[in-house]
Amino acid sequence: DPATLATNSPHRRFNPLKGEWVLVSPHRTQRPWLGQEEDTAGEEKPRHDPKCYLCPGNTRTSGAVNPDFVGPFVFPNDFPAMLDDTPKGGTSDNPLFQAENVRGTARVMCFSERHDLTLPELPVDAIRKVVDTWAEQIEDLGATYDWVAVFENKGAVMGCSQPHPHGQIWASDFLPNEVATEDETQSRYLREHGQNLLLEYATAESAAGERTVVENEHWIAVVPYWAIWPFETLVLPKAHVLRLPDLSGEQRQALADLLKRLTTRYDNLFQTEFPYTMGWHGAPTRAGTFDHWQLHAHFYPPLLRSATVRKFMVGFEMLAEAQRDLTAETAAERLRDLSDVHYKAARA
Amino acid sequence: DPATLATNSPHRRFNPLKGEWVLVSPHRTQRPWLGQEEDTAGEEKPRHDPKCYLCPGNTRTSGAVNPDFVGPFVFPNDFPAMLDDTPKGGTSDNPLFQAENVRGTARVMCFSERHDLTLPELPVDAIRKVVDTWAEQIEDLGATYDWVAVFENKGAVMGCSQPHPHGQIWASDFLPNEVATEDETQSRYLREHGQNLLLEYATAESAAGERTVVENEHWIAVVPYWAIWPFETLVLPKAHVLRLPDLSGEQRQALADLLKRLTTRYDNLFQTEFPYTMGWHGAPTRAGTFDHWQLHAHFYPPLLRSATVRKFMVGFEMLAEAQRDLTAETAAERLRDLSDVHYKAARA
Ligand SMILES: O=P(O)(O)O[C@H]1O[C@H](CO)[C@@H](O)[C@H](O)[C@H]1O
Ligand SMILES: O=P(O)(O)O[C@H]1O[C@H](CO)[C@@H](O)[C@H](O)[C@H]1O
Repeated sequence: DPATLATNSPHRRFNPLKGEWVLVSPHRTQRPWLGQEEDTAGEEKPRHDPKCYLCPGNTRTSGAVNPDFVGPFVFPNDFPAMLDDTPKGGTSDNPLFQAENVRGTARVMCFSERHDLTLPELPVDAIRKVVDTWAEQIEDLGATYDWVAVFENKGAVMGCSQPHPHGQIWASDFLPNEVATEDETQSRYLREHGQNLLLEYATAESAAGERTVVENEHWIAVVPYWAIWPFETLVLPKAHVLRLPDLSGEQRQALADLLKRLTTRYDNLFQTEFPYTMGWHGAPTRAGTFDHWQLHAHFYPPLLRSATVRKFMVGFEMLAEAQRDLTAETAAERLRDLSDVHYKAARA
Repeated sequence: DPATLATNSPHRRFNPLKGEWVLVSPHRTQRPWLGQEEDTAGEEKPRHDPKCYLCPGNTRTSGAVNPDFVGPFVFPNDFPAMLDDTPKGGTSDNPLFQAENVRGTARVMCFSERHDLTLPELPVDAIRKVVDTWAEQIEDLGATYDWVAVFENKGAVMGCSQPHPHGQIWASDFLPNEVATEDETQSRYLREHGQNLLLEYATAESAAGERTVVENEHWIAVVPYWAIWPFETLVLPKAHVLRLPDLSGEQRQALADLLKRLTTRYDNLFQTEFPYTMGWHGAPTRAGTFDHWQLHAHFYPPLLRSATVRKFMVGFEMLAEAQRDLTAETAAERLRDLSDVHYKAARA
């Protein structure tokens, strides 16, 4: 009989999707914090801000004027990290100095006309429109590019520089690191175990329940067993789905419902507009066989103890290995026990 | 003839030490910044702060009293992420739920008795004592543990919670992710090319010069070709060295000199106590053959444009691939052109 894991003692857990470990230190939550505290997004925001580049009818830095949009609105990023006309080229003769030119494009997506409503504050039907727009964008850009990154940086602490709720779309003619890794790990898993990694994982988590945050007929959101960020979650469909555009109307509606409940719990945890990076990983849009893939979304939120105290991924984390204090099970329980009603709505 | 890389256009570069790519967007530095700005560590600090846990003669949270130390002082971390008496155990039957208990320990190292002097502000001989203490600690803990992480988190923005200049030492009975990866990449490089990866790299960089920040007889500090952080540097010995304790007296003295000149340039860049995570990667201290290793230090500083505007590694970076705006060559040139005289000394 192998010795059993002591989950209340320091241990490491393995992330089969990244092929990496995380150090878990459950005894360490008592540590006092004398370091940096973040500002909270305190002030009330107006429904429409005449100085906001992203509000309907306003003029952007580029000089373009936003239409009088209602619902999601997508426009080209004025400062894209990639361009669609870069000449092809590269050097690869020296293994120490390898580089290649890349092509790509970037877009910005306002979630709605409302300057004051973040994702959890939108009605389910408005979130459904966000889901549909994500799918459309992946379909559109996926026709030209190998990879379409759909993500949201929420909150100033996550580098978001525009308060109007919005996400980003970056398309590229290559598979970025994280995607290449997930392609490999999922492919190897299918080869070695004859099962889809994340489909099997979703089934196991739904049965176990201890890491579940919210769940409905078509989706489950869990704090993954190998979570790095204190309140990290993984959103998984219960059926095998390769990409967002493949979702049925029913699955999309159920996703909108799940996203509202998940992000509402996030906001309720510290009674704040909970910052995070979130984004979708689906099968690449280049030609190929991708049965080993399963669509999923990652939420990476930095907050640890309160609206102002975050986890810093520095030092040991940057040079050695990610480290967390509370266990995935404790984090999931805290989120699960929160209300489905947003704290702002409850106040009103 | 292969097409040549256009380094002024978007491209990716390959990091042979991590086996990962970085997206470089040289055209993007004009982007305006409306996002979060950091506080600068403005206030003058006293030579000795009676309320500081880390100053000589003061009482720590644990109740222990610091001696009247002069020079480096090492003591046990009161809130270690690992413990030395965790029972061994683990579960590995299910590939989706793998975990193992770990043992380790953590120490804190004040660089000197002075509350007000960061590394670049210490005289070279005091930095030499820091180098000697790092080496001693690796020797001491390396006798018991597989890996000894020696690092510094500098600045509140890097999660540093104590203003008294100090570093940390974490020892573990396993090789953390980053170390395991570097072990593999260096081993493969030696096998495939018959050369030590970083020794060959240091020689190539010393000859090229365009990414060099500071250099002396025994050491070179470069912005690596594959740098992720805007002003990231890699510190390399010019001879083959496995671990810090193996350095000769002359190599240590030269290292102290190089570290002073490098960190002084960092401070001079934005006239601020330049924040970073830095740390040493040497051959593991477990039994084994490690000829493929080369000792090196990484400096990962977050600042991008000024003392208050940092690079955020979020969104695309977390979910896809690290991205930088200015090229490694531009960053190196800016640092290289700065003075060896610290801005505070120049003011005085
Ligand atoms: O140990 P400290 O300085 O309190 O904490 C800091 O360094 C640790 C090691 O890099 C990190 O795990 C923490 O997130 C960081 O805040
Ligand atoms: O494009 P934005 O929102 O100005 O910038 C933000 O998101 C980008 C994509 O994740 C990051 O590269 C930037 O560091 C971040 O500040």
